[in-house]
Amino acid sequence: MIRAGVVGATGYTALELLKLLVPHPDVEVVAVTSRQEGRTPIGDVHRSLNGRLDLCLENLDPKSLAERCDCVFSCLPHAASAEVVSQLLAAGTRVVDFSADYRLNEVDLYETWYDTQHPDPTRLDHTPYGLPELFREEITGASLVANPGCYPTSAILGMAPFIKSGLVDGNDLIFDSKSGVSGAGRTPKLVTLYPECNESLAAYGVGSHRHTPEIQQVLSTVGGSQVNLVFTPHLVPMDRGILTTAYSRPTEQLSQEQAMDCLRSFYDGCPFIRVVDYLPATKDTSFTNFCDISARRVGERLVVISCIDNLLKGASGAAVQNMNLMFGLPETAGF
Amino acid sequence: MIRAGVVGATGYTALELLKLLVPHPDVEVVAVTSRQEGRTPIGDVHRSLNGRLDLCLENLDPKSLAERCDCVFSCLPHAASAEVVSQLLAAGTRVVDFSADYRLNEVDLYETWYDTQHPDPTRLDHTPYGLPELFREEITGASLVANPGCYPTSAILGMAPFIKSGLVDGNDLIFDSKSGVSGAGRTPKLVTLYPECNESLAAYGVGSHRHTPEIQQVLSTVGGSQVNLVFTPHLVPMDRGILTTAYSRPTEQLSQEQAMDCLRSFYDGCPFIRVVDYLPATKDTSFTNFCDISARRVGERLVVISCIDNLLKGASGAAVQNMNLMFGLPETAGF
Amino acid sequence: MIRAGVVGATGYTALELLKLLVPHPDVEVVAVTSRQEGRTPIGDVHRSLNGRLDLCLENLDPKSLAERCDCVFSCLPHAASAEVVSQLLAAGTRVVDFSADYRLNEVDLYETWYDTQHPDPTRLDHTPYGLPELFREEITGASLVANPGCYPTSAILGMAPFIKSGLVDGNDLIFDSKSGVSGAGRTPKLVTLYPECNESLAAYGVGSHRHTPEIQQVLSTVGGSQVNLVFTPHLVPMDRGILTTAYSRPTEQLSQEQAMDCLRSFYDGCPFIRVVDYLPATKDTSFTNFCDISARRVGERLVVISCIDNLLKGASGAAVQNMNLMFGLPETAGF
Amino acid sequence: MIRAGVVGATGYTALELLKLLVPHPDVEVVAVTSRQEGRTPIGDVHRSLNGRLDLCLENLDPKSLAERCDCVFSCLPHAASAEVVSQLLAAGTRVVDFSADYRLNEVDLYETWYDTQHPDPTRLDHTPYGLPELFREEITGASLVANPGCYPTSAILGMAPFIKSGLVDGNDLIFDSKSGVSGAGRTPKLVTLYPECNESLAAYGVGSHRHTPEIQQVLSTVGGSQVNLVFTPHLVPMDRGILTTAYSRPTEQLSQEQAMDCLRSFYDGCPFIRVVDYLPATKDTSFTNFCDISARRVGERLVVISCIDNLLKGASGAAVQNMNLMFGLPETAGF
Repeated sequence: MIRAGVVGATGYTALELLKLLVPHPDVEVVAVTSRQEGRTPIGDVHRSLNGRLDLCLENLDPKSLAERCDCVFSCLPHAASAEVVSQLLAAGTRVVDFSADYRLNEVDLYETWYDTQHPDPTRLDHTPYGLPELFREEITGASLVANPGCYPTSAILGMAPFIKSGLVDGNDLIFDSKSGVSGAGRTPKLVTLYPECNESLAAYGVGSHRHTPEIQQVLSTVGGSQVNLVFTPHLVPMDRGILTTAYSRPTEQLSQEQAMDCLRSFYDGCPFIRVVDYLPATKDTSFTNFCDISARRVGERLVVISCIDNLLKGASGAAVQNMNLMFGLPETAGF
Repeated sequence: MIRAGVVGATGYTALELLKLLVPHPDVEVVAVTSRQEGRTPIGDVHRSLNGRLDLCLENLDPKSLAERCDCVFSCLPHAASAEVVSQLLAAGTRVVDFSADYRLNEVDLYETWYDTQHPDPTRLDHTPYGLPELFREEITGASLVANPGCYPTSAILGMAPFIKSGLVDGNDLIFDSKSGVSGAGRTPKLVTLYPECNESLAAYGVGSHRHTPEIQQVLSTVGGSQVNLVFTPHLVPMDRGILTTAYSRPTEQLSQEQAMDCLRSFYDGCPFIRVVDYLPATKDTSFTNFCDISARRVGERLVVISCIDNLLKGASGAAVQNMNLMFGLPETAGF
Repeated sequence: MIRAGVVGATGYTALELLKLLVPHPDVEVVAVTSRQEGRTPIGDVHRSLNGRLDLCLENLDPKSLAERCDCVFSCLPHAASAEVVSQLLAAGTRVVDFSADYRLNEVDLYETWYDTQHPDPTRLDHTPYGLPELFREEITGASLVANPGCYPTSAILGMAPFIKSGLVDGNDLIFDSKSGVSGAGRTPKLVTLYPECNESLAAYGVGSHRHTPEIQQVLSTVGGSQVNLVFTPHLVPMDRGILTTAYSRPTEQLSQEQAMDCLRSFYDGCPFIRVVDYLPATKDTSFTNFCDISARRVGERLVVISCIDNLLKGASGAAVQNMNLMFGLPETAGF
Repeated sequence: MIRAGVVGATGYTALELLKLLVPHPDVEVVAVTSRQEGRTPIGDVHRSLNGRLDLCLENLDPKSLAERCDCVFSCLPHAASAEVVSQLLAAGTRVVDFSADYRLNEVDLYETWYDTQHPDPTRLDHTPYGLPELFREEITGASLVANPGCYPTSAILGMAPFIKSGLVDGNDLIFDSKSGVSGAGRTPKLVTLYPECNESLAAYGVGSHRHTPEIQQVLSTVGGSQVNLVFTPHLVPMDRGILTTAYSRPTEQLSQEQAMDCLRSFYDGCPFIRVVDYLPATKDTSFTNFCDISARRVGERLVVISCIDNLLKGASGAAVQNMNLMFGLPETAGF
């Protein structure tokens, strides 16, 4: 039985994580923490958990937490997370980190994009990136895994097979991503107020979103040489779901059938990837850990469409998948 | 030409008001104020107004505002509003007040429900309540009108004809109201964050909502004796619209046809009331100043259903309708 | 292992049912039927099931189906369902019927409200009504259970404790219910077209909805004497969820605390009922089998608010709960 | 006074058109037609028009219609529209055609993409395309105008200034468009059923949408040489609004400031184009005839974002703007 704790348990990803961990046959949730809430029952903060998890939020220091837990999921903001994670690791607990702190390999890149000093820079170049479909071996048995960003998950899973195989030009990549509002978090802001974003659609962070270097680094690693890309996120009036429409240029003749074959063979044996002939909708993956992918040849382009539930495969589902591998369980345990 | 100003112009009702006033043939919008925004173009706060209204927000004192304006619309919170309104009136400007400050007739009732001292108590017993369908004479030519609450508008318009005629028991009234989220205002709060209220429905303020005494007072006035009621508001995942389902008990034999006739004759000559045979939907009235009403006889009850756009007939549309009457214009001018 | 089949598997309740049955540890889904779809993979009709259930739709006669299955869930329309159910029972299979066919006790009442002849009238007076919170004993071990309607589930669960105890007047009951759109089924109709019902709210079937006699009968049974009620359903722009606001009149002094105590003691030991102090939101119960209930004393009335996921506790969740009891499993198995 | 008629008045674009025409100071709506509805009051089909337009639907032949009307708006499907339009023109009435029938210049192209014979092929090469921002002169005084498609309007308006000036490569264009559901029309279909498209997002018609050749032709005309593009439409869970994110490659050094200047000077004097510094949201343009545009330089790409209300600037608003020019009125009359 893995004794699990969740740090920063008041947000949406923590809620979804708890919904997965509570019925997981190999997990017992033993601690949920918050710095602000005091000793409040978790069901007061997440009412849907009432009757399902009988724990109070606590303001625990990393050491006490490590004593209680075999595995801690950190849902803290970046920088704050690495601070705590490094202490948890030092105390011998395994960690899945939801923040961006251990995703990038280079400190400079992190400090440029996140505009802060990294509290634990030495771990950056060897922490596995938590996409089991690409890095299953590194994740298996690891003590720390960097849980991927939601946009990067959808973008990378769609394009990795083609980058890996060299079938498309890594210097001509466009990722047009559309996300539901839960991805923006649970802190009240004007931009995510219901009457502001309901019945509306907008791009944001064009050219400046922090998931850009993450996608770039992982695809570069996969392809073995530096890729170049444009990433444009959009906010869509729905709770959950990300769909990424990726535009690439084949390096040689590539029929749609060949493209689909490439996807199918790359993801052979991956239980959470569904390569589908039809154009997938985010709702097909809502409340699941699936990523649905399809490809279309359009003129000189290869268009790849991939979608996920941003809170599950894009966050908490991936985290449980990673935990399973870290602890030697079947990847699908608990789903 | 009526020179119009809007005090507290950063919220949703102010936005809708400006959309009505700008193209109104008898109105020129000359001032929009805010205490917090500094000298910002109104289009920066309400982007949909770009290219339609070329004014900057100003932090004007009531006296300067009165000098510029023939009519001021106050969209300030209660108590803050009466403070300003009394000075505007003293300086000779007419006012439509969106707050609750002048809706109740009795200071005690106000101070009990609004938990604050009234800054201008002497005007309470003779300020017309801005429902032209009930108080057209008092509103015509008035210098101050209390613009009704959104819920009261839908509740009162549906039930007034039956209370007035004594056809239903004033002591057995239930108003079950459902409102879109814009009614909760533009200040970011957890409860109106998109992922909280989207795909969800809840009652709130059961037995304690401040619109209760307002409905009670107006229907008591209309009927000539004290009514008793239960009012339950609900938050619905949509931008705008209020639908009130009212349950009453006929005092004598009352067929559905007689009920519909009562509605039709009561609202004869009212340009913004549509008595309809079918069950109206809020969308029928969205972006209009209409109130749609129908009635059904169900067992021993008369069920009356009324709906409005909460931001228009429930707020800014009514305000313009009131302004029209205050200045001797046709009630429908500018619509 | 219970071998389970689903008849009429192309709708929303069937989809939710399959999502519950597939991971249920004591169930194997062995057949899904449709008269229209031919031999189509279930994942073509319900794309979210791809990779989770590898079955094709079949057009099976009741006898063949009965041979394969220990338990059949019928998601057919009323009348069509009883036709099939009676044959399934004759062939020795147990059945949970989602239609209204076995909910009412009296043939006349059924034929009046459903405007058709009942194909299997002799079973009407002794088929258990599938609300385990009220009829657990009758359901346990039964070979046929009438799965309740979605509105009745929310209405009855909220009011039954007060009717049973005689604390409210059974002749003065109003149920104002609000439902998400999935309750209207998966057949394309103008009224449930996205741009028709999005951003809109309306009542429908006022005084004529077929769930009226069902609520009336069950509450009358619970209370031991005939109740009288008004039931008003509304369509709300959200996928799932029903919230019922019930208005009743206490027969004697009844404080809010006493009302809450009545709820708590009535539902003691019911794993899927959460009696909560706050006003529950449908989203608290979405994607769960919970019914959340709270009560408020308002003037002379007792207002009871209850909410469910209409597709789960209001349909497929209840069906699995019933199947568990029919087969002697713990009520919560598979949840 | 222009006597106006609407052919095929039961859909969403016709409804929006009537909402614009009814209060237009220079227009009197004299006829609304439908082949299926019989002599039904228009308010029975579009309830929001009750009390605003007192006309019945009629099944009029083109000749009778032409006798009554100075201007007819055809909202018929393609092919059916040209059939009627040619007769209306022969009878001396001016026409704004909402269908695709007169948008493409070449019969072959039309017949390839629309898979039908063109009923009136001789008018194809000289009918003005109704985007006044590009073809104001041709539209002014014309007797027939081809009202643009909704996607093309947003795509073309965003990119035309850069194609016209040669600042971007016409052979490297990607249009990723996202539309609200009203664009899919009012005929009930599974794909636009509320529970199917609510809380979901999907691409459709990738590489095969009929608006592709329309965008291609108009941008080629604007640029003076053939452009090549990929166009990907997506369905978004909202009623109205289209946002197009266009990806292009500058042919020379082009700073973001230069790109914004290019937009501003191109649209100087265009009352319905707002070139904005911020990233526009569809809601900024909802219920208006505005198109909001902004540009961002991202790496080697120029990203242009444009949005409209698909039913107004993308359909009925443009139609009224065109009618104004056809009849020598100010472009903004009636808005």
